[in-house]
Amino acid sequence: MVDYGINFWSNQDFVIEDGVVKIGDKTKPALIDIVKDIREQGYRGPLLLRFPHLIKNQIDKIFSCFERSISEYKYKGAFKAVFPLKVNQMPNFVLPLVELSSDRCYGLEAGSKAELILAMAYTNKNSPITVNGFKDKEMISLGFVAANMGHEITLTIEGLNELESIIEIAQEFSPPYPNIGLRIRLHSSGIGVWAKSGGINSKFGLNSTELLEAISLLEKNNLIERFTMIHFHIGSQISDISPLKKALREAGNIYAELRKMGAKNLTCVNIGGGLAVEYTQHAGINNRNYTLSEFSGDVVFSLREIAKNKKEPEPDIYIESGRYVAASHAVLIAPVLELFSQEYDEKALRLKEKNPPLIEELNDLYQSINEKNAIEYLHDSLDHMESLLTLFDLGYIDLQDRSNTEVLVHLVIKKVIKLLKHKNHNDIIRIQEQVQERYLLNCSFFQSLPDYWGLGQNFPVMPLDRLNKRPTRSASLWDITCDSDGEIAFDSEKPLFLHDVDVTKEDYFLGFFLVGAYQEVLGMKHNLFTHPTEFSVVLDDDLNKGYEITNILEAQTILDVLDDIDYDTKEIERRLKLRIEENTALSDEDKKDILGRLYVMLSENVYLKTITPTE
Amino acid sequence: MVDYGINFWSNQDFVIEDGVVKIGDKTKPALIDIVKDIREQGYRGPLLLRFPHLIKNQIDKIFSCFERSISEYKYKGAFKAVFPLKVNQMPNFVLPLVELSSDRCYGLEAGSKAELILAMAYTNKNSPITVNGFKDKEMISLGFVAANMGHEITLTIEGLNELESIIEIAQEFSPPYPNIGLRIRLHSSGIGVWAKSGGINSKFGLNSTELLEAISLLEKNNLIERFTMIHFHIGSQISDISPLKKALREAGNIYAELRKMGAKNLTCVNIGGGLAVEYTQHAGINNRNYTLSEFSGDVVFSLREIAKNKKEPEPDIYIESGRYVAASHAVLIAPVLELFSQEYDEKALRLKEKNPPLIEELNDLYQSINEKNAIEYLHDSLDHMESLLTLFDLGYIDLQDRSNTEVLVHLVIKKVIKLLKHKNHNDIIRIQEQVQERYLLNCSFFQSLPDYWGLGQNFPVMPLDRLNKRPTRSASLWDITCDSDGEIAFDSEKPLFLHDVDVTKEDYFLGFFLVGAYQEVLGMKHNLFTHPTEFSVVLDDDLNKGYEITNILEAQTILDVLDDIDYDTKEIERRLKLRIEENTALSDEDKKDILGRLYVMLSENVYLKTITPTE
Repeated sequence: MVDYGINFWSNQDFVIEDGVVKIGDKTKPALIDIVKDIREQGYRGPLLLRFPHLIKNQIDKIFSCFERSISEYKYKGAFKAVFPLKVNQMPNFVLPLVELSSDRCYGLEAGSKAELILAMAYTNKNSPITVNGFKDKEMISLGFVAANMGHEITLTIEGLNELESIIEIAQEFSPPYPNIGLRIRLHSSGIGVWAKSGGINSKFGLNSTELLEAISLLEKNNLIERFTMIHFHIGSQISDISPLKKALREAGNIYAELRKMGAKNLTCVNIGGGLAVEYTQHAGINNRNYTLSEFSGDVVFSLREIAKNKKEPEPDIYIESGRYVAASHAVLIAPVLELFSQEYDEKALRLKEKNPPLIEELNDLYQSINEKNAIEYLHDSLDHMESLLTLFDLGYIDLQDRSNTEVLVHLVIKKVIKLLKHKNHNDIIRIQEQVQERYLLNCSFFQSLPDYWGLGQNFPVMPLDRLNKRPTRSASLWDITCDSDGEIAFDSEKPLFLHDVDVTKEDYFLGFFLVGAYQEVLGMKHNLFTHPTEFSVVLDDDLNKGYEITNILEAQTILDVLDDIDYDTKEIERRLKLRIEENTALSDEDKKDILGRLYVMLSENVYLKTITPTE
Repeated sequence: MVDYGINFWSNQDFVIEDGVVKIGDKTKPALIDIVKDIREQGYRGPLLLRFPHLIKNQIDKIFSCFERSISEYKYKGAFKAVFPLKVNQMPNFVLPLVELSSDRCYGLEAGSKAELILAMAYTNKNSPITVNGFKDKEMISLGFVAANMGHEITLTIEGLNELESIIEIAQEFSPPYPNIGLRIRLHSSGIGVWAKSGGINSKFGLNSTELLEAISLLEKNNLIERFTMIHFHIGSQISDISPLKKALREAGNIYAELRKMGAKNLTCVNIGGGLAVEYTQHAGINNRNYTLSEFSGDVVFSLREIAKNKKEPEPDIYIESGRYVAASHAVLIAPVLELFSQEYDEKALRLKEKNPPLIEELNDLYQSINEKNAIEYLHDSLDHMESLLTLFDLGYIDLQDRSNTEVLVHLVIKKVIKLLKHKNHNDIIRIQEQVQERYLLNCSFFQSLPDYWGLGQNFPVMPLDRLNKRPTRSASLWDITCDSDGEIAFDSEKPLFLHDVDVTKEDYFLGFFLVGAYQEVLGMKHNLFTHPTEFSVVLDDDLNKGYEITNILEAQTILDVLDDIDYDTKEIERRLKLRIEENTALSDEDKKDILGRLYVMLSENVYLKTITPTE
């Protein structure tokens, strides 16, 4: 049976049992039942399911791994972590995250003013806030406000200019002041798609000369005691551990050297994010070539060694992993609307009494094809097709001839595949790719999987049920936008096989997994499709079904979407009504009926709804 | 003087005069004056300037070119066009577009329900609506409602399923019915990034066999007289004309053949979009290798020839060019916040009395470098730097040594560049790229230039003033997001040179041009940065300044952004207030002060504001 590589990417968060995908906890509710449950309440279109217990799982994993390494190496520094809000700022993610981590020293990281406000409103007491990214004076003042409010906040300086602003603003405020962090620009650079966040030409951070200048500025302005943290980040989604070890050596030495230069309160090394998520569905193509224990062990061990060599105290360790915490908690469910079958049988063939000679030849090829001549005849058929299509373009044959050409070539290919299916012939493989079934999904890849469009990121995808039946159709996936980029293609190396389903008779749903990081806030409103209908699934053993559905947020209605892009929706309604009123061809009855239909539509959500024929 | 390739991309819409960029009309207002004007009203952060007269310009160009070709070839079909809303649905674009084209037969194209509602509310009377993309029954009903309202609307069928829905829904409505279009799947495929919208494996359209089936369905259900249009689209941004000519031959023959099969009311060929925009700033790298006259001439001529050969009437021509109409109307202005200079002079060098041997050697290299040994010494210096950085990572040298290394290598490079600047040495070119000045811009590339992130699309960029001074710094551009992808790099083949400006003393603005197509609706809220402050510039010779600023829409405030992603903003305010109240370390006076500062911040927009030091 095809298992869609679930053991590579799911970490037992989801499992296959009885032919369906289930949540991998005690009571094991099936995703398909949850989807049916919500659709019975009338929701159509794509669905985003959130699983708060998976947020907690990931946080627990990080803390327990680091705590184990700390105890193993008898490390004296503490471990703290923050969630970088840029990875997911949505309330139905952030609020559970904060609630479920209140027993940990787990805070929030902000990279903009709006994110800082969120952090100030929601960070648990006694948990840290860090502020990265470029900051104006207003944002720095906001950091001072947070410190005054009682937050343990660290402002990470990205350039000397920001330090000068801090010095200036400190004079406007009374203590407590925020802590100051310095982002260091590493010489050792990361590996992977996001490598340029590390490295000497990176967008962020201070080089050694600037660090020395910063220390001198801090001393001169009596702020050196607020300097508590150095920060680096070698890039998102680190595939191998060795660049991290190199960066730790460099950063560890900078930490020790800065302390020796008088930074007595420098006690934290913030290693940024980068802990990778395994997205692969295929053996041998891993995104992460290390375990979490290896990661935490290497961090603790490296910093301990440097501290020992340099005779400095072992620093507290901060991390800012976001993708690792958020990715698994959300699953996008897309209903399949249609299969664009290219299946023709001989009935579709409508040969005339007298056909153009090339079509007669094509028909002969089809009739006389056998295993021995299959590849030769296939090539001949494709040649004939090219010629016949040219004849059509030049006006020599008609549409019926062209259709017969399509059907005959299709029949030839089907026969060849059947004859040679036990062989691995290149032509067959290439053609099988071309005769992929196209599955039309009721969602927008631009809105719900923007990293697929921008970075070619693949997310694990699989049907929610029928998993005890072998899927037979090599698939490509289409969304409902009017954009040819709204297609996820698969190839013979990483194919996707799906089931042959008559969607006019039965439902078929695909789940895209690990979509909880970045995909929501980067979502694009292409064709005015907005966020899918979302809800949270809270596990509860005491309930019959084993779960409860909460926080339902429906996809936006048409009027809401137009309001969001700043249309005057009252004016739109007025204009529509006026056009109807002014149309003298309509009876009063008709006018009322049409207006009624329009109003219903305006308050419905933007995705597709009824596709199947009425019984 | 550097002209930033303005003659390649601007079509005289913008011109350089007196060292500044001006609007290329009669009174020629300067962009920098418009920007100062709006900033005097207190608006900070990035600005999106719209020029409604450029929308009209582009529409006029298309119509006059086609009308000229029609009259030249004595063509008997009419010319009509629609604007595809997916390219830009924003009210301050769409409303002027509709108003300024009311004397033309210029309608709107919709690809989703929300877009169809816009088209129904705003299309000018007697102008057409076309509806493309996948449609559910609700969307098809909406098309029938539009027809009943009096709109001239054509529903383009993407698959047979949709035709079956039309047949079913027609029974619910009285005439007038919408027209029916059939999207044809072409054998000839396009060229370019978007090629897959055409071609036999394209996302959209019917093949010949399906066309025959569609005709038979239409006849059987007495709807054949509503079938008026065939539609194809070979892809966006067509770089060469020959694929279009091939597609026209194919589509023209399909048109003629369908008429011969009984489609007597088939009178329109809709050639979709694809008319390219020239984005290049550099000679020899064109995006469009044909003129608009060549384009219109080829379309009219091809269809005339086929009609003549097949003895059918010359069809009406529809086009759906969106990029060509929308791109030029909008300009993004990004203030430069900071230059991250890596300039060091000898003062930054703080050699110790006794330095590590390699640093002594590095210093000797620097002192004794001359034109003859320059490249050799440069290589030696870079080698030494690698070794010294390794020594630091291993704990053998300290931070001051590391800083001296950085400074010495920097000084060596500067000297080498000076010594060899008249030669085109590979090493020098490579190093000059590496010592690019980094210009930090107050904007988000994810929000304002999403096609740069997703497709690597380059937009023309240039400073608004100082154009009579030679720009000396090879630049790379950074945005203010916390994302290493928020960087636009340039290389020695397509460099960007900017001016050396002290932005703490004077303003410096960059303009990104041709951003009016797709960039707004695809804008991503990364780090919660939303749309820039936008306004329209309406030219008016009667006014002193030559223009009027209208439709100002400020970038969202922090609270608005949070409200948009469905936070309960009252709850956020309550929580912030509570944290302050509960903080016993604060006096009542302090509490009031802090709360006041917070409230000001909540109502300010999300971008950066004050960067320069207070005088």
